[in-house]
Amino acid sequence: MLNNIKIILVEPQHTGNIGATARAMKTMGLHHLVLINPENFPHKDAYIRATHATDILDRCEVKDNLKVVINDCSLVIGTSTRDRGAYVPALNARQTAEKLIAQATSATVALVFGKESTGLSGEDIRQCHYYGFIPTAADFSSLNLAAAVQTFCYEIFQASFYRENDKEAEVNPRSNNDFPKNEDLVFFYERLEHLLTQSNFINQKHPGIVMERLKAVFKRARLDQKELNILQGMISSLEKH
Amino acid sequence: MLNNIKIILVEPQHTGNIGATARAMKTMGLHHLVLINPENFPHKDAYIRATHATDILDRCEVKDNLKVVINDCSLVIGTSTRDRGAYVPALNARQTAEKLIAQATSATVALVFGKESTGLSGEDIRQCHYYGFIPTAADFSSLNLAAAVQTFCYEIFQASFYRENDKEAEVNPRSNNDFPKNEDLVFFYERLEHLLTQSNFINQKHPGIVMERLKAVFKRARLDQKELNILQGMISSLEKH
Repeated sequence: MLNNIKIILVEPQHTGNIGATARAMKTMGLHHLVLINPENFPHKDAYIRATHATDILDRCEVKDNLKVVINDCSLVIGTSTRDRGAYVPALNARQTAEKLIAQATSATVALVFGKESTGLSGEDIRQCHYYGFIPTAADFSSLNLAAAVQTFCYEIFQASFYRENDKEAEVNPRSNNDFPKNEDLVFFYERLEHLLTQSNFINQKHPGIVMERLKAVFKRARLDQKELNILQGMISSLEKH
Repeated sequence: MLNNIKIILVEPQHTGNIGATARAMKTMGLHHLVLINPENFPHKDAYIRATHATDILDRCEVKDNLKVVINDCSLVIGTSTRDRGAYVPALNARQTAEKLIAQATSATVALVFGKESTGLSGEDIRQCHYYGFIPTAADFSSLNLAAAVQTFCYEIFQASFYRENDKEAEVNPRSNNDFPKNEDLVFFYERLEHLLTQSNFINQKHPGIVMERLKAVFKRARLDQKELNILQGMISSLEKH
């Protein structure tokens, strides 16, 4: 799916941004880079900034015409600031990623970035099916080119992830831990209550809601078996003392 | 809301990354930058890379101690790659942003980034309430520092935007509770450790990781002020007893 996505830089001016683009792409599982008329490439600064993503620079295509490069693409999204994309429908970065990923399951797609100084020309944007923008603060909307690439590639990877994977495993890395049986939890709560009653923190005649509040804390934490063992050991040591 | 969010760089090594961080922040409506022991600041390269965000560099704080900088923060999230944050609960970038935004409506919060070469130290991460990671491709997870800042700040801005629908408040009824300052949590951990050392549950000469595991439980539970008061009262009663 991610292999069907081309990242295209039109006339990039700064060699460092080409390298940073490669790095940003590789961290997000993207490998297909195309440069249209770069000012200066190959260049050592691009390789330095790419760090461990130099393979993407080695394999990138250098072309002289956007139209030809997007000929085989079923979906082409140009990137721009919010107010530039006349006559082309707009998508924010997240929507852009979702569209690209949905299409990339079965076809080649492209995301196109313009040069640092002026962005994509009106003509280039009109060749795109949509334009994608990164929502920004009102008073300063100018992301560095490599930062914009990182942001879009990040959203693309997230979109691919949510499409392919079980969400729970990612959100909750503890899901494979051993969790105690409820009776063991109840036993722990009882021991804690007994200890706090002995220490007069809980008044036996008017216990109030202290225990309920403490239980709420441990429930939210979702104690695993090892943690419960530690807490039981803690209570034993305090009881002895 | 966004004004309550501190972005903290611990020992940044490359001046360009400091400037790119300022630019990334400003595009996403964030203005409060703190540098802990930067290798080289102020420096003209930082100002060049910041472009129109030099005001953030002019006003940034330069300090020598993370602990002091986060003392007034009700929520502190360190950033790390996926596998680094033992004993501190993990959040992906989107969850990180949602947590920060929910809390930032009423209190100061911080997002902390480590140095380029090694990231945050284990000690620094353990001072945090959570750690946030950017989901990446399996074979290359190393984002440039400024790219990581851009990605998190982007998610923070998106979360602030979606917050207008008051999603978090609906999902999480605790989001309006008062949460303790970090120094009060640290004080609680210290008292608990002292108590458990006195009771010989913790061996003073070989303390091991018991306290880290207990802290992990309380961090996951995300104690509010009332709950912390109860736990402090519990410790006082056990100390007297």
